[in-house]
Amino acid sequence: MSERLQQQIEFIREVDKLKSVLRQSYIMDQTRRENDAEHTWHITLMAWVLQEYIEPSEVNLIRVMKMLLVHDLVEIDAGDTFAYDEKGHEDKFEREQAAAKRIFGLLPKEQRDEMMLLWLEFEERETIEALYAASMDRIQPILHNYYTQGRSWKAHDVRSTQVLARIQFLRKDMPKLYEHIEKLMADAVRQGYIRS
Amino acid sequence: MSERLQQQIEFIREVDKLKSVLRQSYIMDQTRRENDAEHTWHITLMAWVLQEYIEPSEVNLIRVMKMLLVHDLVEIDAGDTFAYDEKGHEDKFEREQAAAKRIFGLLPKEQRDEMMLLWLEFEERETIEALYAASMDRIQPILHNYYTQGRSWKAHDVRSTQVLARIQFLRKDMPKLYEHIEKLMADAVRQGYIRS
Repeated sequence: MSERLQQQIEFIREVDKLKSVLRQSYIMDQTRRENDAEHTWHITLMAWVLQEYIEPSEVNLIRVMKMLLVHDLVEIDAGDTFAYDEKGHEDKFEREQAAAKRIFGLLPKEQRDEMMLLWLEFEERETIEALYAASMDRIQPILHNYYTQGRSWKAHDVRSTQVLARIQFLRKDMPKLYEHIEKLMADAVRQGYIRS
Repeated sequence: MSERLQQQIEFIREVDKLKSVLRQSYIMDQTRRENDAEHTWHITLMAWVLQEYIEPSEVNLIRVMKMLLVHDLVEIDAGDTFAYDEKGHEDKFEREQAAAKRIFGLLPKEQRDEMMLLWLEFEERETIEALYAASMDRIQPILHNYYTQGRSWKAHDVRSTQVLARIQFLRKDMPKLYEHIEKLMADAVRQGYIRS
């Protein structure tokens, strides 16, 4: 086997561990918590289905999908940092950067560089692709919480204002999606899924 | 909420069920069986990493990724049919076609049509994109079995000749990958992971 293929197979083996990184969200039937691998599949598919809501520009969908497919790989080493865990966020980027170096570093050089750049772009949320990818990553757990009657919001005593604060960046480029989530959050408060 | 967005959100909710469709393969740490959603994420990422092995043509990666992202959704209704279950394969296509109509049918018309066509293309395995996508779907469980010492091969008394028969179509368009898997299978027999 060529060294190149060996590196690629090693990467494919290593990333299997993403299936064991648990998130705070529950799958919608509430039988168990969701893992990062299935979450990633879900938001990559969502990115395809919802792309028309980017206004006025269009996104390069393949770049969005690539970003999403690898955006959580760093959590294999760094673990999932809950969105509302302030302490955990202090050294999050440092921990994740070391993880990115190790995990993407298993690949041949130009593939490593491509993934590293896409991961950094995702983290920086400046390009429209990164903003859109990040919006999928943030909307999905809101849907999961809403359709599980606030299961993980309640467990962590999250407030509706905190949830909305994290998606303010949608207002400009994805106004219809933002509006929908805003209504959904108002309903979640009414139904008692979350505190206002 | 517009009817269109409502349909799209309903689809996003419905496909969450893919996370509960269990496959025969184990995740690599052997703690549990893999589900279709995480399997799909894994092979979509593999398709990106291994695309150079298609010879001599190139693939349209976004079409491959789209095909893969939805290729197993029919199993939400039709269940996972194990690759070596001959009885289960008799009415597989019929069951899956009904499932495709229901699940893709949740979406607005042109999105439903796009997914239905990509799913049929994947099933027919005639275009290079479909062949390549199918090769990822078949190689991944071989890697999982190999790196779990034949865990599900042993459970179902699968033979090495059966595994190789299912990937003969790789010989022509992905010779280097085929060659690698052939060597891996020979080693699996030597190590006692599978019967010849």
